[in-house]
Amino acid sequence: MDITRITNAASRIAGQARVTPLLESHGLNAIAGRRVLVKAECLQVTGSFKFRGGWAAVSALNDAQRTAGVIAYSSGNHAQGVALAAREHGAPAVIIMPSDAPAAKIAATRALGAEVVLYDRASESREEIGDRIASDRGLTLIRPFDEPEVIAGQGTCGLEIASQAAEMGVSEADVLVCCGGGGLTAGIALSCEAKAPGLRVRPVEPEGYDDTARSLASGQHEVNAASAGGLCDAILTPSPGALTFPIMQRLCGPGLVVSEEQALRAMAAAFAHLNLVAEPGGAVALAAALFHGNQIKGDAVICTISGGNVDPEIFKRALDFL
Amino acid sequence: MDITRITNAASRIAGQARVTPLLESHGLNAIAGRRVLVKAECLQVTGSFKFRGGWAAVSALNDAQRTAGVIAYSSGNHAQGVALAAREHGAPAVIIMPSDAPAAKIAATRALGAEVVLYDRASESREEIGDRIASDRGLTLIRPFDEPEVIAGQGTCGLEIASQAAEMGVSEADVLVCCGGGGLTAGIALSCEAKAPGLRVRPVEPEGYDDTARSLASGQHEVNAASAGGLCDAILTPSPGALTFPIMQRLCGPGLVVSEEQALRAMAAAFAHLNLVAEPGGAVALAAALFHGNQIKGDAVICTISGGNVDPEIFKRALDFL
Repeated sequence: MDITRITNAASRIAGQARVTPLLESHGLNAIAGRRVLVKAECLQVTGSFKFRGGWAAVSALNDAQRTAGVIAYSSGNHAQGVALAAREHGAPAVIIMPSDAPAAKIAATRALGAEVVLYDRASESREEIGDRIASDRGLTLIRPFDEPEVIAGQGTCGLEIASQAAEMGVSEADVLVCCGGGGLTAGIALSCEAKAPGLRVRPVEPEGYDDTARSLASGQHEVNAASAGGLCDAILTPSPGALTFPIMQRLCGPGLVVSEEQALRAMAAAFAHLNLVAEPGGAVALAAALFHGNQIKGDAVICTISGGNVDPEIFKRALDFL
Repeated sequence: MDITRITNAASRIAGQARVTPLLESHGLNAIAGRRVLVKAECLQVTGSFKFRGGWAAVSALNDAQRTAGVIAYSSGNHAQGVALAAREHGAPAVIIMPSDAPAAKIAATRALGAEVVLYDRASESREEIGDRIASDRGLTLIRPFDEPEVIAGQGTCGLEIASQAAEMGVSEADVLVCCGGGGLTAGIALSCEAKAPGLRVRPVEPEGYDDTARSLASGQHEVNAASAGGLCDAILTPSPGALTFPIMQRLCGPGLVVSEEQALRAMAAAFAHLNLVAEPGGAVALAAALFHGNQIKGDAVICTISGGNVDPEIFKRALDFL
């Protein structure tokens, strides 16, 4: 993995993925006590950064692979990103989703033309199911994070952060990234290394699912006790990826961990001060910026809102904090 | 009023107001049966397009006027736009707001450093109160729409629509604009006349407050029976402005009228498909695009989400339609 792979992905994505805005508000700055620059990936096509990696991966396939089709497993955001990228390339798509994924994500994935296969997150392995169906049907598996082209696609978000932060006068800051398997975190870290070396990426996870923070601290792959049931469905991966972890080890600062209530409060803050809809897993980085400021240094902090695909009932719970 | 005044305002606003994105989603296109391009002014600084007009007006004052300060009357969005523009120019600001304005808007206006004076929308005239305080304190009154620099500032939104729509391949379409007194509608219409003559602006209003639609139909200033109490607080003006109406008469197509329920359903659609927070008055144009398609021609329609400053309880009512 190097920056050339990311800039190549950026060339293929141009005109397909959105250059999402880096937003600042007086209200969030006042809460955090420093400038808070929010990379609004909830405004990305399909509602999360995952379209970047999906497009990068599908657009890198050869003709035979595209004709045969692709398969992906996902709690919902990677599902939609791959489904749309596949449809736009004329490739069939099978998406394996947990049966407890948000209803809106399952419906949206089907609406994008994909065949959805549901599995039980607690008792079945999505990796095994994915490998079996891929092999049976000759599909190309597009893993959600441990895939070089996917990491490169997510890294295009980091290219934008680097240039947008510079335009806003910020060259030294922590970049807090909502972290599941580490595709977005590693991708942004690689882009910042090349384009904005004063920006330091730090993964943010919810309590109970802080495998990356613990792995970075211990120097080895730590595994979460729980693998299902948390509110932050988008980022409940058991352990950092084989490809993403070494990148994060080399480039990232210490991880941050927030409570589910803090994620909900960050969703409420994004509603009140940015008019943005964030999902719980997409709000953990903003939660760290707002509520763990004592672990952050500097006059400014950058954070991703990595997705906004949330069921209304969960969103109402967040609004109750206002 | 001509395009030069708008392009001059655009020069003063550059780097202060955001160039808000023109967003498209598969989900909204599917509901409407045509392309729907959404100008997301809810992402503007202070959460609505009103910051454009506020900045344009305050930045046009001379030093003595700035030192003395400004006054504005507003249900909340113009309030915040003027309050922030004044603060950034070092000018004191008095804002006259109806006592039934959304609590979030009153709080946000105070947080921006303005002195807020509340009045009763049903029994008092904000114009009279504004004129009296302005005269007593030597403040410059910045009217919410019937003010050339304010119209010019709102028109900068139309300059962006013209260039962004062209980039997205749309040169012939109706541009549906959420309409109160007509400042945004007239401003966008002037910009489209000069920069994108294939785009035709049409005002959109809520039922019971459709003074502009009726005025355009009759050719004279019609007045709403009610002046308070509607859900779409941002756009409950009694009659089109003296400056804005002739511009709209010359340039705009017929007005559209939506129900409050349709506005709430449009808010729900913006939540589900764009991850955006729209307020009721800021959602009427999207409501017309989604639910009054039989009154619109062409393969594409453009609409503003003109603001997103909504109290959580109202937003929850919208989410109940999902």
